[in-house]
Amino acid sequence: MPNFMEIAFQEAEKAAKRGEVPVGAVLVSASGEVLAQAGNETEAAHDPTAHAEMLVIRAAAKKAGSARLGECDLYVTLEPCAMCAAAISFARLRRVTFAAYDLKGGAVEHGPRFFTQPTCHHAPEIVGGVEEQRAASLLKNFFEERR
Amino acid sequence: MPNFMEIAFQEAEKAAKRGEVPVGAVLVSASGEVLAQAGNETEAAHDPTAHAEMLVIRAAAKKAGSARLGECDLYVTLEPCAMCAAAISFARLRRVTFAAYDLKGGAVEHGPRFFTQPTCHHAPEIVGGVEEQRAASLLKNFFEERR
Repeated sequence: MPNFMEIAFQEAEKAAKRGEVPVGAVLVSASGEVLAQAGNETEAAHDPTAHAEMLVIRAAAKKAGSARLGECDLYVTLEPCAMCAAAISFARLRRVTFAAYDLKGGAVEHGPRFFTQPTCHHAPEIVGGVEEQRAASLLKNFFEERR
Repeated sequence: MPNFMEIAFQEAEKAAKRGEVPVGAVLVSASGEVLAQAGNETEAAHDPTAHAEMLVIRAAAKKAGSARLGECDLYVTLEPCAMCAAAISFARLRRVTFAAYDLKGGAVEHGPRFFTQPTCHHAPEIVGGVEEQRAASLLKNFFEERR
């Protein structure tokens, strides 16, 4: 099995080089096939919804010809925000593995804790904090260079 | 000033005719220009993120060449979900006017009440319940016909 989080990190690093907040994501099928991989594109695309998670969900759903991706797993370098958490729920993803925790904008372990809400109709399995330090350093360096 | 909610209703009605959950949205500039209008497209586009609100935000941001739409107002026939509420916050919209309350999936007055969370960094002015009965009937009829 490939290291899917490594692919997500490569996408995050590519995003940083483009001047985007360095977050990367990969969507993987039940059989371990990479369906989509992407880095954050909000600046280049002039699209406030173009988070890495949204891009891979949209691409994989288009490829699958279905808005639901029931057996698929997401790997992402940062704890998803409320927008992405709700999209993950709508897409019925099976598992979400993320690296850094996002105290300021995360919506899985912070803020709205979306998947615990009574208005959340599907909650994936969650694995948080995988290679947390690497992802946190990537973000910290990015913002420090821009000060 | 045109009746922007009426345009949102027309989009919702068109969505229903396409077999989509009938929700429509309009994004309006500070000067009252309609920047984008859309109905829900999740089924036809095979895109779990293709809620009416997301479509108009994405289209208007692309048109404006900016991920931020600071002086713009959104009119939508249903209380936004967490995904759309977070996107509204990222786009820095000025005001959100919605028709029906969504007890099952809404994230403005229900569930996560996203705009009240400490992890929400911009909250628009909110006007809820405008022509609530009309929007609720549209949704009720749509789901009854599909039983």
